[in-house]
Amino acid sequence: MKEKIKIGWIGLGRRGHFVLSSCVALMKDVEVKYICDLLDDKLKRTSDSFIERKIPCPIMTKDYRDILNDPEVDAIFVMTGWSGRPAIAIEAMHAGKYCAIEVGCSDTLEECFDLVKAYEETGVPVMMLENCCYCRRELAILNLVKQGLFGEIVHATGGYMHYLNKEELFREVENDDVKHYRLGYYINRNRESYPTHELGPISKTLSINRGNRMVRLNCITSKSVGLKDYTKEKLGADSKYSKMDYKQADVVTTLVTCANGQTIQLTLDTTLPRAHYSRNYSIRGTRGMSNEDSKAIFIEGMDEPVRDNELEMFEKYDHPLYVEYEKSKKLGGHGGIDWLVCRAFVESVKNQTQTPIDVYDTATWLSIGALTEMSIAQNGAPVDIPDFTNGKWQNREPVVRQKYCLDEIVDDPNTPIIP
Amino acid sequence: MKEKIKIGWIGLGRRGHFVLSSCVALMKDVEVKYICDLLDDKLKRTSDSFIERKIPCPIMTKDYRDILNDPEVDAIFVMTGWSGRPAIAIEAMHAGKYCAIEVGCSDTLEECFDLVKAYEETGVPVMMLENCCYCRRELAILNLVKQGLFGEIVHATGGYMHYLNKEELFREVENDDVKHYRLGYYINRNRESYPTHELGPISKTLSINRGNRMVRLNCITSKSVGLKDYTKEKLGADSKYSKMDYKQADVVTTLVTCANGQTIQLTLDTTLPRAHYSRNYSIRGTRGMSNEDSKAIFIEGMDEPVRDNELEMFEKYDHPLYVEYEKSKKLGGHGGIDWLVCRAFVESVKNQTQTPIDVYDTATWLSIGALTEMSIAQNGAPVDIPDFTNGKWQNREPVVRQKYCLDEIVDDPNTPIIP
Repeated sequence: MKEKIKIGWIGLGRRGHFVLSSCVALMKDVEVKYICDLLDDKLKRTSDSFIERKIPCPIMTKDYRDILNDPEVDAIFVMTGWSGRPAIAIEAMHAGKYCAIEVGCSDTLEECFDLVKAYEETGVPVMMLENCCYCRRELAILNLVKQGLFGEIVHATGGYMHYLNKEELFREVENDDVKHYRLGYYINRNRESYPTHELGPISKTLSINRGNRMVRLNCITSKSVGLKDYTKEKLGADSKYSKMDYKQADVVTTLVTCANGQTIQLTLDTTLPRAHYSRNYSIRGTRGMSNEDSKAIFIEGMDEPVRDNELEMFEKYDHPLYVEYEKSKKLGGHGGIDWLVCRAFVESVKNQTQTPIDVYDTATWLSIGALTEMSIAQNGAPVDIPDFTNGKWQNREPVVRQKYCLDEIVDDPNTPIIP
Repeated sequence: MKEKIKIGWIGLGRRGHFVLSSCVALMKDVEVKYICDLLDDKLKRTSDSFIERKIPCPIMTKDYRDILNDPEVDAIFVMTGWSGRPAIAIEAMHAGKYCAIEVGCSDTLEECFDLVKAYEETGVPVMMLENCCYCRRELAILNLVKQGLFGEIVHATGGYMHYLNKEELFREVENDDVKHYRLGYYINRNRESYPTHELGPISKTLSINRGNRMVRLNCITSKSVGLKDYTKEKLGADSKYSKMDYKQADVVTTLVTCANGQTIQLTLDTTLPRAHYSRNYSIRGTRGMSNEDSKAIFIEGMDEPVRDNELEMFEKYDHPLYVEYEKSKKLGGHGGIDWLVCRAFVESVKNQTQTPIDVYDTATWLSIGALTEMSIAQNGAPVDIPDFTNGKWQNREPVVRQKYCLDEIVDDPNTPIIP
């Protein structure tokens, strides 16, 4: 086991800078040896934040290969825009570096296969940093499900229901320069481009790639009018953003069918005004259920109707990891989920073990974007989801029996979450 | 206009008896001349309830053709089990009687075409009694949408999420005799068998068959384990109901795509324990939304997040029909919706006008059951929804400009809802 690891950080956009400066830079067992971005101002912003906090300033580079060529580096974080992350990860794996990649989808199915191939050739783990797997609600429900309190699981729903127009998409377009990578996708493509915040936790709940697998999906989309309506109203009819057509549907609904007979409903809903943010997380079993929107967690035998009892049920059924996090200094962004997911990765690197979200999970989740495009093009016809494990899902056991494991509940008090 | 109409009532099961005795029998402008059922005990229960209330007891018959052959009868209500309603309706139309049919699905697509053909040959209206079209929430949202307050509508969801096992399905099986028609379907078929409580209001909100139409659907289903789990637990492993397989999936998800680009998501979820009943009604537009589960009604500009503000918004945006109902003596079951939907039909008969839910609506909604079976059999492949209007949907205007009209908001104080 390594006492301290050295990492390189690639991508210092808003999200990359935030996770680095609020989480990983604060970890005593991590030395950030490199930071990398194509833009000088991004490099400067991050290095300034290191100087401010009196943390040794990392080496700055615009070429991520400088990091991969340094034999001292144990792991890299890939926090670049949506496209091209798997290619960097593959190079990293061949250089023997653990690789964490930010949530998202691949452009093509081939990238996903290439990622699996690189892992099988090198044995070097890659992990999608799906922070929502470590959210209080998702962890408590995982705990309830793994304890069998919901009975046999039959159906799950999840969504990314977040009005992005004003908050993100058009934040930087005043100077007529499309800077947000998501906007480019929304102009050119129609797909479920952001499923993993819900699909990650659901996959773990349904034991995907470990005794179960996602077999096929159907994807159906609404028209696309939200972005045009927004830009006309907010940027004026003469803005080039008001004159263009957006291929991205306002609401994208995907149904995944699993080998063990469960269905998973995913919704992407990011371009229309919303009453509230929601991941629309719900689980339906033969003995219980949860429903994020009505804040209900129900176990058979409870008096109906049940609503707004989530907090009370969390207190009773919180996952041991969350219980420990609650007692900590509560470091990190988004209520701790960024901290926890980064710790999950760092602990794997330190212990040279498999990551709790492994290459098969990562490839499967990445593949959704490309697969939904295929189904949409055929009016929602079923499209097979590749078995990236090549049959191994039938007998795969959880390999990481440590506190960040999402395949079973492990109470492991010997690994502090604040090192 | 007729001052008083004469009706015949076919089907005196739990629902038929309830709607007749709590609504239609109390209407001063309706004479119930016939009641009809195949079973003596059902006929007796209903006639006893007439005697108890000192209302003249109707003629009892086991043959509905007795009713159709009586030239004095203006209209019939078909409240029989799920199968065979369209056939009775068609006979009634050919006999010149207005026909109301209880909510449900047809067995085959042919029945739906036959219904339309009978209407086009006879000019006699038929109306599905979709009471949820007249529910406070659904009416208020219709009002908001028709006033344009949600902007352009993009997506809608609805569901029948109601745990029926203990409440209905196995209520009468103690004597080992399957009496509930729904159970027979659940044993033998896999389909979206009960979509109209949500699809009815959504159709009216999206102007289906009047400027818009449902073009195709995809239907995807989970495994079926809820009924078996329930019967094993509650009736014992030796019960014949525990030993049989149920074809009905626990969760059935249907996506409908409309000519004007909207998507409609329907969910049937009736065989697993639930935290609360829900019709999962939600509407998404470019300027606002509603969400039943979080009880949110949101119009752009309101401070986010918005939750639990439904009642407040209802008070501001209640449909004029509901406002009037609230001031009335509140007759009828299910919070007035049974009363209102029956009044809608009775007013059409009295005025010899078209019904607010017409033959095209009825046929379209009835067709969903058969169409979803076709899609399920092909793993959710798209299945075309017939255009029952034969192209007329492009130019059809609301023909009923009276208070029960669901195609536009009509404030019509001259027709009392309690005659």
